[in-house]
Amino acid sequence: MENQTLKTIFEHKSIRKYKSTPISESTLQTLLEAGLRASTTGNMQLYSIIVTQDKEQKEALAKYHFNQPMVTQAPLILTFCADVNRFHIWCEQNQAEKSYDNFLFFINACIDTLLVAQNICTAAEAMNLGICYLGTTTYMAKEISDFFQLPEGVVPITTLTIGYPDEQPKLTDRLPLEAVVHYEKYNDYSPTQIKELFNEKESSEETQKLLQENQLPNLAQIFTKNRYPKKQCEDFSVLFLALLKEKGFIK
Amino acid sequence: MENQTLKTIFEHKSIRKYKSTPISESTLQTLLEAGLRASTTGNMQLYSIIVTQDKEQKEALAKYHFNQPMVTQAPLILTFCADVNRFHIWCEQNQAEKSYDNFLFFINACIDTLLVAQNICTAAEAMNLGICYLGTTTYMAKEISDFFQLPEGVVPITTLTIGYPDEQPKLTDRLPLEAVVHYEKYNDYSPTQIKELFNEKESSEETQKLLQENQLPNLAQIFTKNRYPKKQCEDFSVLFLALLKEKGFIK
Repeated sequence: MENQTLKTIFEHKSIRKYKSTPISESTLQTLLEAGLRASTTGNMQLYSIIVTQDKEQKEALAKYHFNQPMVTQAPLILTFCADVNRFHIWCEQNQAEKSYDNFLFFINACIDTLLVAQNICTAAEAMNLGICYLGTTTYMAKEISDFFQLPEGVVPITTLTIGYPDEQPKLTDRLPLEAVVHYEKYNDYSPTQIKELFNEKESSEETQKLLQENQLPNLAQIFTKNRYPKKQCEDFSVLFLALLKEKGFIK
Repeated sequence: MENQTLKTIFEHKSIRKYKSTPISESTLQTLLEAGLRASTTGNMQLYSIIVTQDKEQKEALAKYHFNQPMVTQAPLILTFCADVNRFHIWCEQNQAEKSYDNFLFFINACIDTLLVAQNICTAAEAMNLGICYLGTTTYMAKEISDFFQLPEGVVPITTLTIGYPDEQPKLTDRLPLEAVVHYEKYNDYSPTQIKELFNEKESSEETQKLLQENQLPNLAQIFTKNRYPKKQCEDFSVLFLALLKEKGFIK
């Protein structure tokens, strides 16, 4: 592929092993500036980025990410937060009535935050760095919020580990394009279509290996029984909604 | 800037005027494939992309985006939806117990959806296309959901208009980097810091023009009185939460 940007995007793989090589201050600044260029709702920039580089801080933070080794191994951890706090202080200074302490603004801020994160991901990979998103951020959002001393109006949404790759994983499989794209209307799936669309994923060597390891009859049950069990997901949902209330986004 | 990917990211401007030049089928496929390469929670791909190219469909859709002219003018509209429906049908087929009809999975799906959207934005700009995000998507999410006949488990999150630019806007101003970046802990803002961080934005020529047009004493009040009035934001919040209930993400 000749187009360098497309090449960067098409070669993305999550990196979970990093070299100890540090990230220079100027590279970090470029990454953060790349984040800032993302589109943002009404140019309000409803996000904050927390940089973790300190060894002890990384060790403490790792606990909230289920001790995934990459959190301590990666030289750079970025925690992305939906943030209306900065905007709020500015509005108060200007006698502008609060109109952002609600769920719509939580979603606006989420959108802003995630576009920034993905810009930084692409920029990092363009500079030969590797990244991995940590889904654990929303599970432990309350603990992470307390750890970083987040004020009202600020909620952690996602985290990136960033560093120079010490592994070369294969490209991850994806469902075929027609599985996720709809033309003009949403075309709901027939059972036969679903079977066809998931066929390659289900019959892959990796899946066969997973079935053996998990001692389960199919891949779907690995997701719902082992990776995302019902009770856990429901508990995390209650906790996250409680945090949105604590931070002023839900009445 | 020599790095082509960084150049693409740093030159991003939202484009609101498009040429009538159509987007070729192969360019569309490349854009969509670029979306698919984004990181996704547990490789579940909890999103769908709805492609609107038909003239009449664009006209109908434009209503839900407050008749912004770019919706009918742009050759391509992509509506990005958080989607657990496809995953659900697959799980049902495999006797895997539902563990994704909750708020945590709505957030997981939101994250997936927005990383895909931002990948497509960067890919589009790398192919000399211009894009604009439509924040109206969450305001009118219920109407857009009905329009596209979205089933349970599917909620529209954002929309991109895409086409060849027919304008060359300036780079949009952003707050200085130190306004959004925190090191190790969240450093809450003093009133003096906020004044300094917003100073450039408040004193710009554009802001002076806006103050005259809006007949308001400061920029913050333009946001809270005219652009995002309290009552409207609260009403949209209630409607969006009701949609999350209708679609099975909130009990």
